[in-house]
Amino acid sequence: MRASSYHINTLKEAPAEADVTSHQLMTRAGMIRKVAGGIYTYMPLGLRVLRKIENIVREEMNRAGAIELLMPVVQPAELWVESGRWEQYGAELLRIKDRHQRDFVLQPTSEEVITDIARNEIHSWRQLPLNFYHIQTKFRDERRPRFGLMRGREFTMKDAYSFDRDAASAQASYDLMYQAYIKIFTRLGLEFRAVAADTGSIGGSRSHEFQVIADTGEDLIVYNPDSDYAANIELAAAPTLIALRGAASETLVETATPDAPKCEIVAAQLKRPLTDTVKAIVLATEAADGKAAPTIWLLLIRGDHSLNEIKASKLAGFENGHRFATEDEILDTFGCVPGYLGPVNPRKPVVVIADHTVAHMNNFICGANREGFHYTGVNWGRDLPEPQVADLRNVTAGDPDPQGGHLAIQRGIEVGHVFFLGDKYSKALDATFLDTDGKPALLQMGCYGIGISRIAAAAIEQRHDARGMVWPKAIAPYEVVICPMGWNKSETVRNAAETLYRELEQAGVEVMLDDRDIRPGVMFAEWELIGVPVRITVGDRGLKEGILELQARSDEAAAKVPVAEALTAIVKRLESL
Amino acid sequence: MRASSYHINTLKEAPAEADVTSHQLMTRAGMIRKVAGGIYTYMPLGLRVLRKIENIVREEMNRAGAIELLMPVVQPAELWVESGRWEQYGAELLRIKDRHQRDFVLQPTSEEVITDIARNEIHSWRQLPLNFYHIQTKFRDERRPRFGLMRGREFTMKDAYSFDRDAASAQASYDLMYQAYIKIFTRLGLEFRAVAADTGSIGGSRSHEFQVIADTGEDLIVYNPDSDYAANIELAAAPTLIALRGAASETLVETATPDAPKCEIVAAQLKRPLTDTVKAIVLATEAADGKAAPTIWLLLIRGDHSLNEIKASKLAGFENGHRFATEDEILDTFGCVPGYLGPVNPRKPVVVIADHTVAHMNNFICGANREGFHYTGVNWGRDLPEPQVADLRNVTAGDPDPQGGHLAIQRGIEVGHVFFLGDKYSKALDATFLDTDGKPALLQMGCYGIGISRIAAAAIEQRHDARGMVWPKAIAPYEVVICPMGWNKSETVRNAAETLYRELEQAGVEVMLDDRDIRPGVMFAEWELIGVPVRITVGDRGLKEGILELQARSDEAAAKVPVAEALTAIVKRLESL
Repeated sequence: MRASSYHINTLKEAPAEADVTSHQLMTRAGMIRKVAGGIYTYMPLGLRVLRKIENIVREEMNRAGAIELLMPVVQPAELWVESGRWEQYGAELLRIKDRHQRDFVLQPTSEEVITDIARNEIHSWRQLPLNFYHIQTKFRDERRPRFGLMRGREFTMKDAYSFDRDAASAQASYDLMYQAYIKIFTRLGLEFRAVAADTGSIGGSRSHEFQVIADTGEDLIVYNPDSDYAANIELAAAPTLIALRGAASETLVETATPDAPKCEIVAAQLKRPLTDTVKAIVLATEAADGKAAPTIWLLLIRGDHSLNEIKASKLAGFENGHRFATEDEILDTFGCVPGYLGPVNPRKPVVVIADHTVAHMNNFICGANREGFHYTGVNWGRDLPEPQVADLRNVTAGDPDPQGGHLAIQRGIEVGHVFFLGDKYSKALDATFLDTDGKPALLQMGCYGIGISRIAAAAIEQRHDARGMVWPKAIAPYEVVICPMGWNKSETVRNAAETLYRELEQAGVEVMLDDRDIRPGVMFAEWELIGVPVRITVGDRGLKEGILELQARSDEAAAKVPVAEALTAIVKRLESL
Repeated sequence: MRASSYHINTLKEAPAEADVTSHQLMTRAGMIRKVAGGIYTYMPLGLRVLRKIENIVREEMNRAGAIELLMPVVQPAELWVESGRWEQYGAELLRIKDRHQRDFVLQPTSEEVITDIARNEIHSWRQLPLNFYHIQTKFRDERRPRFGLMRGREFTMKDAYSFDRDAASAQASYDLMYQAYIKIFTRLGLEFRAVAADTGSIGGSRSHEFQVIADTGEDLIVYNPDSDYAANIELAAAPTLIALRGAASETLVETATPDAPKCEIVAAQLKRPLTDTVKAIVLATEAADGKAAPTIWLLLIRGDHSLNEIKASKLAGFENGHRFATEDEILDTFGCVPGYLGPVNPRKPVVVIADHTVAHMNNFICGANREGFHYTGVNWGRDLPEPQVADLRNVTAGDPDPQGGHLAIQRGIEVGHVFFLGDKYSKALDATFLDTDGKPALLQMGCYGIGISRIAAAAIEQRHDARGMVWPKAIAPYEVVICPMGWNKSETVRNAAETLYRELEQAGVEVMLDDRDIRPGVMFAEWELIGVPVRITVGDRGLKEGILELQARSDEAAAKVPVAEALTAIVKRLESL
């Protein structure tokens, strides 16, 4: 491609609303243009990246035996009513009416339609296993679309759905997809991690997320650098940090801690380590009949730890949801304002659940249920009953891994997710097949998503510098750009550039020849912003010595390359990237 | 691909609602499945056809210098308000509201968004010409979606938009697209015609349709077999069939024609040729102020001709629309019921417009404005004033072409349309650039559509037989299918089939190996229905003689091919298709 026949339009400044690097850089490089909140046009350079990602995903899905089809963007409400998600999905599901006032949705995902297809198409165990996927426009009506392609409303997703006879076969389909994802993200040239994850609103019993590692990621990944353990912090089991509870050696003392509603302040006032303190979180669950008073729960974690909301939501008794207790409920239960609450002698009965670590603490410090006072020297069994125990906290970096070594934490961007669904959707839509015994059985399903457009953003979050994007070769909009110095002035430069351009095109390299009449500094800055992996500079001075300059985007310095060896050198450098 | 790893699910019967061949065959072959009215899933075999069409379109668009981008499906209402189409488009434009009650549309086409992009991206004449296109999901909320992919609601369209400095350059861009379309439809392997066409609701001053020839097409194409003239009947100029008006040799006679409200009956009663009769059509246009009485128009065409509504709509005075006159208006104007109306002495003044041919008739027959009576021997100038003259009728097959030869008519399916838009949208959205003189000028636009999914249906309407589809090689889901007779019984057959399968794959042929355990008759019928261009039968009997059977889908008989020469023979036969 010649730049003069293409559309390149970079901006000096990103729009004020662009609050993450990828959004800023894609906008500045002219890869995306906003049409409405969370809705973008993929401009030519941006679309090239998107298509390259799509093609790698498609090739590996096909290689894994998945079969591509294409389900519609607009889907009838009936199927969503049948699955129950018409009610459950919430406001992110964009519901629309056609001219006859019939209800439809813009698909955020396609479990319903594919299960409807499966119940019509799959009759016999002989047809199984089957895995269908499509790469299609999705729509999720985010309340606050932000971060550019990272959390847009209209986006491109690959979603696959596997159908199997039984759980064992479904697990094999899941494993096949897991392996295909490893291949996909490896080929994309991104640093990533497959992590055990919560199943969330999609449901099912098992799932892994594929996270692109980036400091700006919204997810926290717990992993063990010495093993292959990795899990989303939402799910990662937190070990107890105290193997055996020590003896009760201090006496229980009510100590004045004025203006100390936080563990950090208490510890400082009492000149004790933060790890001697216990934090109290008061939650409430409604009575099943909706009439009796709510149950009040007191969750305890160590002062230096943070509550894991996902873990809390899975506690027995929390099946129908939970909430933070109101200030009135707290006053009524503890006779005290928040900030000084604790498990010792609350005014009314409360269910106390202690995190594993808290349950093993001795001589600890907690609120005295009296404003401005804490207890020190608190001991389980002596000063209060033994608590219920559960994993309530987020892992912290450095926590020991019970399997050996220590846990580390890094940030990631979720770009893929595989779910073991079981019969959740096949049951709701009565999708059965005739099994070997001639009897109908429910299809066992898995579903597997990859955020195509989000990958582009994640790649930038992971790979960029002050000058712009640094694309992995596999998904760069172009692999090589030729920058002739003085296109309009020097026939020698023009001829050398044209020759190399032809050679590279013939060698199948995706090459851009910048034949525009712009200043070298501007030209270099544009291609560094756009992040093309290899830049070749063709100038009169170099040509006199018979050399071109090869600059890899990820390298510090440029290399001089003899003109005659340029093609070989470029291809070799590309291969090494 | 191996059939056992693929999803092939053909049906014996098409659904009752499938009323055209392509809908019936695509459903029976398992290429599409209905999700809702006018909304389909492209099943694996159908998607392959769609992608092949897309790729040919993409390649030729790129070759013509158009640049691909991707505009969103969901577009903000603001832009449609700005262009005026939010009001004008009617119910086919699906209007939706997001969770914040903001208005959006599902794009039926993207003039607004691309013009918005252009006004932001194009600053200088130096950037022009530019042509952007995308291949994207479209939605048109048809009142009565029907004919499968032919008139669906959700469909795939390629739409391109050119931007130029001036009309001459815009015309060159238009011509470039016209030529690209010729290449595209030639490569698709379809019989087609580029025809001059009306610009309709898109607007602009010039347009051509690309019509796939098929007896089941909805459009009528007028063409001259001896020249390159071709036009949609909506637009095709109808010649006068009478060069010079003959003398008034009959006297005007009011003749009883009881129960003869139609020209055919009148001609039969009076024993005169139908070509001596004149048909009266009474139209009305509202007064500009909406208060004065409507104007009544009497349009006259020869008894054997049909009114062309599009031509009528372009008459001077019809700019703000027209309608058929009501029975009351007719009674009031002519003092007579419909069926016996004519231009001679109506009760009240009426604007008479005669088709060219009618204006040249003498001694003709028309209604006498008295129920049950017609005039014979009517002559212009003598019995009534000379009329206004216009082209009002549809061309009929056999009409002389003023340029020589005669006109013929055939049916077609519109699959592409190129429009010269001028500044219609750039004016509405104020899309300007700085011209060579440094002053802002409006961008001159063209737009160019291709119905990707409709092409699949049109190809079937053009190419099918009693057994199923007959795909052109370029867009067939697979090029070759290998049908082994007795896969599970004969190792010889299995080995020969596998060898050929490997050879064909290595040669880059898109081949399906049908390794399913099904009866030969069923297997043959399925692949004939699906319409794969070349079928190879591998059987024990043939192998004993060292031969395979090669059956082209479009051939009557199969050919025997020595095993050793099979690859060459298949590749050669494919090339000739």
